[in-house]
Amino acid sequence: MRLTAFAPGSVGNVGPGLDVLGLAVAGAGDWVTAELLDVRGIELRDPGHPDLPADPARHSAALAAAAVLQRAGAHRGLALWVLKGLPLSGGQGGSAASAVAGAVAANECLGRPLGVRALLESCLEAETAVAGRHADNLAPSLLGGIVLVRSVDPPDVVTLPTPAGLTVVLAQPDQRMRTADARAALPASVTRDVAIHQMAQVAAMVAALYSGDLALLGRALDDRIAEPARAPLLPGFVAAKRAALDAGALGASISGSGPTAFALASSKGAATRIGAAMVAAYAAAGIECVVRTGPVDSVGARLVAEPGTFE
Amino acid sequence: MRLTAFAPGSVGNVGPGLDVLGLAVAGAGDWVTAELLDVRGIELRDPGHPDLPADPARHSAALAAAAVLQRAGAHRGLALWVLKGLPLSGGQGGSAASAVAGAVAANECLGRPLGVRALLESCLEAETAVAGRHADNLAPSLLGGIVLVRSVDPPDVVTLPTPAGLTVVLAQPDQRMRTADARAALPASVTRDVAIHQMAQVAAMVAALYSGDLALLGRALDDRIAEPARAPLLPGFVAAKRAALDAGALGASISGSGPTAFALASSKGAATRIGAAMVAAYAAAGIECVVRTGPVDSVGARLVAEPGTFE
Repeated sequence: MRLTAFAPGSVGNVGPGLDVLGLAVAGAGDWVTAELLDVRGIELRDPGHPDLPADPARHSAALAAAAVLQRAGAHRGLALWVLKGLPLSGGQGGSAASAVAGAVAANECLGRPLGVRALLESCLEAETAVAGRHADNLAPSLLGGIVLVRSVDPPDVVTLPTPAGLTVVLAQPDQRMRTADARAALPASVTRDVAIHQMAQVAAMVAALYSGDLALLGRALDDRIAEPARAPLLPGFVAAKRAALDAGALGASISGSGPTAFALASSKGAATRIGAAMVAAYAAAGIECVVRTGPVDSVGARLVAEPGTFE
Repeated sequence: MRLTAFAPGSVGNVGPGLDVLGLAVAGAGDWVTAELLDVRGIELRDPGHPDLPADPARHSAALAAAAVLQRAGAHRGLALWVLKGLPLSGGQGGSAASAVAGAVAANECLGRPLGVRALLESCLEAETAVAGRHADNLAPSLLGGIVLVRSVDPPDVVTLPTPAGLTVVLAQPDQRMRTADARAALPASVTRDVAIHQMAQVAAMVAALYSGDLALLGRALDDRIAEPARAPLLPGFVAAKRAALDAGALGASISGSGPTAFALASSKGAATRIGAAMVAAYAAAGIECVVRTGPVDSVGARLVAEPGTFE
């Protein structure tokens, strides 16, 4: 029997929340179909994209599924087929979504031996191998919603409220940004003043989400660690951010490690206007850009009828 | 006509929230009595303690009252009498409470020309002159409750919910700690990992306060910037913190810049046991210690009938 799991894409490093704040975005994600095998191990029948490794030891979906098999003490194996709905190296949580969908599909095939926490740990093993030990994409992709990662070791995550109307704009310029390069750009240390500023902003974002104060959410979306370090690597970003804010965005920054830029809007209509402004800004810099908008995905990973569907 | 304002003491730098999280503690504070004069300027009739400056240009209550006069465009002056209920250099927000009470008393004498924001700015002017530009004691002392300082310039503060039952333990050892020395001990920079950890903890404390999750509040009360730098300057602190946690404290750290240690408890009864454990731990180190416990003061600064009273 084959089962298919879907996991939504996500914005990691939301604004000042480097490594600690992430949110799932409805409308796009990755699918992993799994089938139990009588032999042990993972057979990666389709990695989902020609540029993704066919070696299951290097593909996040296969690594996560293998971790689930191991944690469950299963004596069987899995065949996997990956369907990518998310861009590669786009900064939209693609490797995390593949890991999550792989882990969930594997867990369901085994009769659901693992709970959420063990699933998250399985995904963390996979993400650590391919992109670094961070849960700010994994946790929202698995759980849905806007998630605060208090700790990775051990995993301790808090799902925060999503204010009504909040809409995410993702503007993906025609650029590639390797996660490793993006991480290398980060400063090894920051001044105490920057650390204090950043603490206060992340905390204020959390307060804003609980209280539904969208103006505060926007004021607090001010990153002085990652964005200043990465913006110079992303032609057009500064103008696109400016355009988003001028078009009414609550705030805007780099999604994950880029190149996708994201903006937060207070309504679907505002999101559409903001997206158009960002496209125009990138175009003015000679850069093509694909925009999508959507609410926060409140469900997270789930079984679906077949690959390519959302239910 | 004389008017008297009371402002409660406070815990600044609550755990990981260096400069950004503060909470007012019921049960002790400072009083400032003010009387309008026909001549301009501040006459400091009683600074409140022989060790406090009699010069109004160096006393936080007088500086704050002067700032109120100036912002209000008043052509008159004020006579001030200060009554200290808080220890000097104790880390219990004493200079902030004096500033707040001075500002509020002055504002009331003038017919309340200033709103809360201008009052906070007046207090900040005073605190900047005597202790540094921080609002994590001023804001809770003025507004009551648990307060997040998102920004000092311009002031932007958020009052957070106080979970039912939350009780504060203040253990004041027989030590002095100059704020300037405590600040000098802080590192000028921190590693990115420490900054990220600290961001996540402060944000998780905010989430815990909104959701009423006291266990999360305790897990998040983990400071890796100020406490490790200041603990070596405070004999007995590490043992007192350990004793507080062993006695059931949700968390414990240094109050403000010390020497007072604080712990958070889930009930009044737990607070009493924790306080006794902290006294015993300091005693074992040969250090006398005075403990008081109380709920969060939800009112903040207010007019009272006369100095020494709370209503």
